[in-house]
Amino acid sequence: MNSIKIVASGMYLPNKKIENDYFNKKFNLDDEWIYQRTGIKERYWSEKENLTQISIMSVRDLIQKNNVDIKKVGLIIVASSNFEDGMPGVSFNIQKEFNIPNCICMDILAGCSGYINGIDIARKYLETEEIEYALIIGAERTSKYIDKEDLNTAILLGDGAGATLLQKSNNKIYEKNIESIGQQGDILTSKENCNIYMDGKKVYKFATSRVAENINSLLKKQNIDISKIKYIIPHQSNSRILNSIAQKIGATQEQMYNNICKVGNTFNASIPIALNEIIEKKMLENSDIILLVGYGGGLNLGSILIEI
Amino acid sequence: MNSIKIVASGMYLPNKKIENDYFNKKFNLDDEWIYQRTGIKERYWSEKENLTQISIMSVRDLIQKNNVDIKKVGLIIVASSNFEDGMPGVSFNIQKEFNIPNCICMDILAGCSGYINGIDIARKYLETEEIEYALIIGAERTSKYIDKEDLNTAILLGDGAGATLLQKSNNKIYEKNIESIGQQGDILTSKENCNIYMDGKKVYKFATSRVAENINSLLKKQNIDISKIKYIIPHQSNSRILNSIAQKIGATQEQMYNNICKVGNTFNASIPIALNEIIEKKMLENSDIILLVGYGGGLNLGSILIEI
Repeated sequence: MNSIKIVASGMYLPNKKIENDYFNKKFNLDDEWIYQRTGIKERYWSEKENLTQISIMSVRDLIQKNNVDIKKVGLIIVASSNFEDGMPGVSFNIQKEFNIPNCICMDILAGCSGYINGIDIARKYLETEEIEYALIIGAERTSKYIDKEDLNTAILLGDGAGATLLQKSNNKIYEKNIESIGQQGDILTSKENCNIYMDGKKVYKFATSRVAENINSLLKKQNIDISKIKYIIPHQSNSRILNSIAQKIGATQEQMYNNICKVGNTFNASIPIALNEIIEKKMLENSDIILLVGYGGGLNLGSILIEI
Repeated sequence: MNSIKIVASGMYLPNKKIENDYFNKKFNLDDEWIYQRTGIKERYWSEKENLTQISIMSVRDLIQKNNVDIKKVGLIIVASSNFEDGMPGVSFNIQKEFNIPNCICMDILAGCSGYINGIDIARKYLETEEIEYALIIGAERTSKYIDKEDLNTAILLGDGAGATLLQKSNNKIYEKNIESIGQQGDILTSKENCNIYMDGKKVYKFATSRVAENINSLLKKQNIDISKIKYIIPHQSNSRILNSIAQKIGATQEQMYNNICKVGNTFNASIPIALNEIIEKKMLENSDIILLVGYGGGLNLGSILIEI
């Protein structure tokens, strides 16, 4: 099978910025308490925009920054941990908004790492179908599902969306390692009429052990040393988790891309938002190898190696 | 690419049977009014079972009827028009229930025909990954999202789930034609805090025109005449729609499988439930060709040709 090429990217954050000070006052915390524990300084919460609107804005950003013909998109996949509506799906609303003529649309619920599943599905469709572009969006409105009085989740989570446009590529490197562990699904949940629940200790253990193992076996599959990876672009869950994973896989701080400081943990949106930032800053060159890694509710986790 | 083989199937209907008489009294209708307009005599509504429980029961039925090792499932996809929980997804709950060790799980929201998308994704994973079985489930708890005072939807919709176990096959025939039309998404919706809404006339027009065209171009792709199809297994939306589609594609009543009388319109569950019935009745033989066709909210539609 062929690989995929990242053609363009975009992102969106709702306009209500929530700084740590908001929580410091609310929970009577020291100034540095949140930052030291999470690496987060600010996150964004949607006041009025729904999941479809947040998603559409990320695609609008992608179109505005890149000279691409959005009508040539043949597959739209939106990944989120929570969808507001059953029908039509967000992906269908995007098709409608940009009046895309011939397209397969679907929304995916696969915990916090459905964006990774979406990329992998897109690769298979780009390989085997007559599709020019696949548009994969990770989007979240987590603020709607958190108890703002719950210090465990409220300080962490933010809203936003990231959009990634993919094309088939003749590059050789593409590898993935996707795993689901429904057996441990109760440590991070978002159930009907309940707020998001997180058993912080168990999630920390899962993220720092299983995710490192997942990455190591991905690298082994392609016989690539971690030093050859330009950037690891992880789900931005918590800086302490990212540092621990980096240590376990032997990655430097420079390799392990971390932008949680400015956006918080945006579940499915976190990888495409970070990827968009790296692309905007022109930090990638042809033949660089990057590693995307998602993990979270489900439990679900997955990593993907792509050559730029 | 290879084709797929249907290895096993199962189904489940919740235990509260709603006969037409219930509506006849409620809406003061003549005895035959509903049946003449819809082809439906009874449907099932869940009283207490949630979407996960309904889905699990269909897998339990599949396991009880077939000598298959469920632990060898490597991909679980659940399609529904409405998911109750964000995390964990129903597919993850199924992995947990049957303690399936190595597996990729995801839930798909793609209107009423996400089951068709699920089958097509499964085919690509069975072809390219080391996966023994893929388990595709269409499941619905529509009764939770209907206004029981709305004659347009309440008389039509039922709950249930159908499970289909797939394996890679060397059979030659596999073809699909999946289309999304987000531009018309507002004629059949299931939005947050709203009941399912259906513009009956527009849905009828969409189903009888676009679905027939979709099937005709699918058959053309493989240069197969409709007479060579043993059964068309359509989404069971309404008998009048099925009769109209049959007429437009030149299929006989015997070819166009219709079991809506006993189950109602169960959205994503309708095709796998009908397929399960055909398999249970031993109506299929090796090298028969069947055509699955789904359509509905999104809008989304898709048809698949499979050789048995």
